[in-house]
Amino acid sequence: MQRSKWWGWGDDGKSYHIPDPERFWDYVRARLGPTVFHPPVASLERCEVRRSRLPLSLVAALSNIVGNSAVLTSKTERAGYSLGKSYRDLVRIRAGRVPNPTDAIVQPRTSEDVRAVLDIAARERVSVIPFGGGTSVVGGVEPESDGLVLTVDMGGLSAVVKIDPVSATAVVEAGITGPDLERQLNEAGFTLGHFPQSFEFSTLGGWLATRSSGQNATLYGRIEDRVEALRLAYPGGNLATPDVPAAAAGPDLVQFVCGSEGSLGIITEAKMRLARLPKVRDYRGYAFESFGEGVGAARELMQYGLHPAMIRLSDEPETESTLAMRPPPTGISGVVESAGRWYMARRGIRLEAAAIMIVGFEGEKVSVDHQWNEAKRVLKGYTAFSLGSGVGRAWQASRFEAPYLRDLLLDHGILVDTLETSTTWDNYVALHAAVRDALHGALGERSVIMAHLSHSYSDGGSIYYTFLAPQERGREVEQWERAKVAATNAIVQHGGALSHHHGIGSEHLPWMESYIGSEGMHVLASLKASLDPAGVMNPGKLLPRSQGASRG
Amino acid sequence: MQRSKWWGWGDDGKSYHIPDPERFWDYVRARLGPTVFHPPVASLERCEVRRSRLPLSLVAALSNIVGNSAVLTSKTERAGYSLGKSYRDLVRIRAGRVPNPTDAIVQPRTSEDVRAVLDIAARERVSVIPFGGGTSVVGGVEPESDGLVLTVDMGGLSAVVKIDPVSATAVVEAGITGPDLERQLNEAGFTLGHFPQSFEFSTLGGWLATRSSGQNATLYGRIEDRVEALRLAYPGGNLATPDVPAAAAGPDLVQFVCGSEGSLGIITEAKMRLARLPKVRDYRGYAFESFGEGVGAARELMQYGLHPAMIRLSDEPETESTLAMRPPPTGISGVVESAGRWYMARRGIRLEAAAIMIVGFEGEKVSVDHQWNEAKRVLKGYTAFSLGSGVGRAWQASRFEAPYLRDLLLDHGILVDTLETSTTWDNYVALHAAVRDALHGALGERSVIMAHLSHSYSDGGSIYYTFLAPQERGREVEQWERAKVAATNAIVQHGGALSHHHGIGSEHLPWMESYIGSEGMHVLASLKASLDPAGVMNPGKLLPRSQGASRG
Repeated sequence: MQRSKWWGWGDDGKSYHIPDPERFWDYVRARLGPTVFHPPVASLERCEVRRSRLPLSLVAALSNIVGNSAVLTSKTERAGYSLGKSYRDLVRIRAGRVPNPTDAIVQPRTSEDVRAVLDIAARERVSVIPFGGGTSVVGGVEPESDGLVLTVDMGGLSAVVKIDPVSATAVVEAGITGPDLERQLNEAGFTLGHFPQSFEFSTLGGWLATRSSGQNATLYGRIEDRVEALRLAYPGGNLATPDVPAAAAGPDLVQFVCGSEGSLGIITEAKMRLARLPKVRDYRGYAFESFGEGVGAARELMQYGLHPAMIRLSDEPETESTLAMRPPPTGISGVVESAGRWYMARRGIRLEAAAIMIVGFEGEKVSVDHQWNEAKRVLKGYTAFSLGSGVGRAWQASRFEAPYLRDLLLDHGILVDTLETSTTWDNYVALHAAVRDALHGALGERSVIMAHLSHSYSDGGSIYYTFLAPQERGREVEQWERAKVAATNAIVQHGGALSHHHGIGSEHLPWMESYIGSEGMHVLASLKASLDPAGVMNPGKLLPRSQGASRG
Repeated sequence: MQRSKWWGWGDDGKSYHIPDPERFWDYVRARLGPTVFHPPVASLERCEVRRSRLPLSLVAALSNIVGNSAVLTSKTERAGYSLGKSYRDLVRIRAGRVPNPTDAIVQPRTSEDVRAVLDIAARERVSVIPFGGGTSVVGGVEPESDGLVLTVDMGGLSAVVKIDPVSATAVVEAGITGPDLERQLNEAGFTLGHFPQSFEFSTLGGWLATRSSGQNATLYGRIEDRVEALRLAYPGGNLATPDVPAAAAGPDLVQFVCGSEGSLGIITEAKMRLARLPKVRDYRGYAFESFGEGVGAARELMQYGLHPAMIRLSDEPETESTLAMRPPPTGISGVVESAGRWYMARRGIRLEAAAIMIVGFEGEKVSVDHQWNEAKRVLKGYTAFSLGSGVGRAWQASRFEAPYLRDLLLDHGILVDTLETSTTWDNYVALHAAVRDALHGALGERSVIMAHLSHSYSDGGSIYYTFLAPQERGREVEQWERAKVAATNAIVQHGGALSHHHGIGSEHLPWMESYIGSEGMHVLASLKASLDPAGVMNPGKLLPRSQGASRG
């Protein structure tokens, strides 16, 4: 079964803890107006899910490969695998709607099983959706509206096959989740250093298929930088890329597969580059007088040649919201903050109107200390006030919690979603404003639009937006689409990346051609045709369904 | 015209300076036997070059695009563009043989011109060879034996279009050479940090097309890491990749083009990531008691989390050869070396039987000092003797000189060539020995086989071989092929990269399928078919000529 609760994020018994509820809801209601209680339907059993249309002969053929108990066709099982975790998904599942249920789930245990399932699917023209953690927020795991569909749950391929401490690499099966992988690597003294917000539930295969980027990617690299070699099962074959640290032997086949979002085949295994477990983690907070000032500092930290594990810079609205959500600071933190506020006030700046940055360094103590000395020297060139390490610790403690908060807001009838992009530094502040304005225009006055810089590079950075508004009851999806279209149009028109780390799926597909051009689409379509001529691999995700591809 | 002398490397008046010729030739003759004087033919005019077969109508059509003076068809011009700088190339051109001359050279000045030339070539089924610096050592610019061939000299597209100091990027035309590019970047306070041994003559487009890796790539990255976006002209279209620092929007199209070696189209422009000019460069030498010990230290430096600009570790034979070629140390260097020798002798080690490592750090002074402190701490765990900074300075002064020495050795009837690979650390010493033994087996007792680690990664490193033997007169190419086949078989059988930075061209093509598998070949062939259905783009390089492709 899915690893998250069917109607929202994460473990069933767990919900978001608001330290100071009164203060938090005051903040929310002051901006969005009164909230209404709007719970999900009572149970998955109550959802409308059409019957599986998979012929019994096909169920039997699949059972022959993976065993009877590894072919799931019940209504609730199929419902649980037929939506991801986007706002659009949650609105629908909470209302008991699963409009496009998969026809069956197969749970292979070996790469040979995966291959055999794909061969049957291609022969029988059944679409295949690879399923890792089911955490896609761009429609990556939802079936299309027509045709037979098979979901392949990769959870059975979840072994750490080999850790090589000499080369600092690990061969890992693709269905492993973040915590399972990281625990085994940690025991050997290593880390992959890959911590996307979905870390607790998403899988290595999902990360690779979507070009995932973790919260510490500024130091450890994006997932596509961390993979030395991989194996892809596709209908009719297996692609295994050479197992070398670097090569000049034609275009890099690894990079053909990273980001393919299941449209070429299923990643079954990868050899990942590891880092040593850092001895020290030192994260600290700074308040900048404006987001633009903080962006300048982030740029300078990167171009100066430092290697922070993270630079996270909230814009003014996100800073205000963060401060509204936390408990009032006490003890040392309270003293530090009071001192900071006093210094800031002398320069006419309020903390709530500032832009808070969290910078972290990780590694050997002497190296972390050295980098902090250098970072402080860089930050002296900007109007930045130290907030100490309490802010950093608070962030670390809650780094995977935001999706739980989303469920809580949905319970109160609030639209809440995130979207993200990236651009070069010269275009950063302009793009930040353009998308913010587009969202404000689409959602109206009663909304909160906030953003942060989540990933920095020498040449640019990402922008991660969170937006809230009171839901338009009965028109939740249309309201969201209005905002999504406005924001994505602004992104593409202003030269931003169509996605920095969420991926394309079905939700970003309408903009794909204007983003990479018809020539780029042609190249990707040719690549797909070469490995999946029947067009059965996750159709309608990343690429439009091709003219030539058949339907089930 | 070509930028290098027609019969060898580099500027016409320049030849290699041997500081102590007597000592050097003693070393050579002791190992290879007596040498013979074997100069190249008197002039390019003396070469056998068949006439251009290009129909006058085509010459006229091309002249219409680029102008009369930019379509070259004379014998000497065509001879100068029809071979690269591999050993096989030099043996032939020095003997006055240009077996497969191109039929004409066109010199476009704009990307529109390039596109127009490619469209004509595709329509008329004329093969196209993109030509940057002509420094390929894998047969990348030599025409095939049959069919009409057009060489496109990209030297006319050599402008730095724009430097963006905010994003630290530069838009650059592909035909620019290393020194032209680096000078303009330096004037703006930046560096690309890309210094392959061919730096003085090779071009940005050539680097990108072959996945080039510079001597300082350990810090600045391989060329494919430094490119943010690029433009590719291909028959029938232009591919322009999005201009963003990072994205999760499908497979990375930039990486489809990097390494394509002209087989898809011609790279006309790229936006490159820059680094600030380092304030300090601090390179120092160490002697290890064995190559294996030094490899362990290189691995540890990388996995510890340091960021050296270079780690270059010679094996024992290369150390001996390097010491034989240099002038006897004097002054401070002499004192340091004497002290080093004394210390080493106390442990029973001779410098000539050691493995010399040069480690360099670059950047802000305080950061370089910090990294050297850490590096020394790491090196304490190994049997390493400091040789001071003289060794580092000597290497820097002669970093681009080795190809000139090759010409000098060829003048004396000596086979001299290089080849390279990479592998993971766990396999490094075994692969090093296997290829060395294969070369020894092929070349016999009277040979020198030496190697160095040139590029280090967290998970592995490259191995760069230089091999010398007395030429078998009249059978120079066959003798070389014997060595090349033996070494490359050993590389592929022992899991090494088919090439780490030289590329595939025609010389490595026979091993390509055993290296990336039939599935990988199928993917690359499909990519080529999507952009070059007529099969005119550099046929027979990287990929075998396809069944469907026409001949001129």
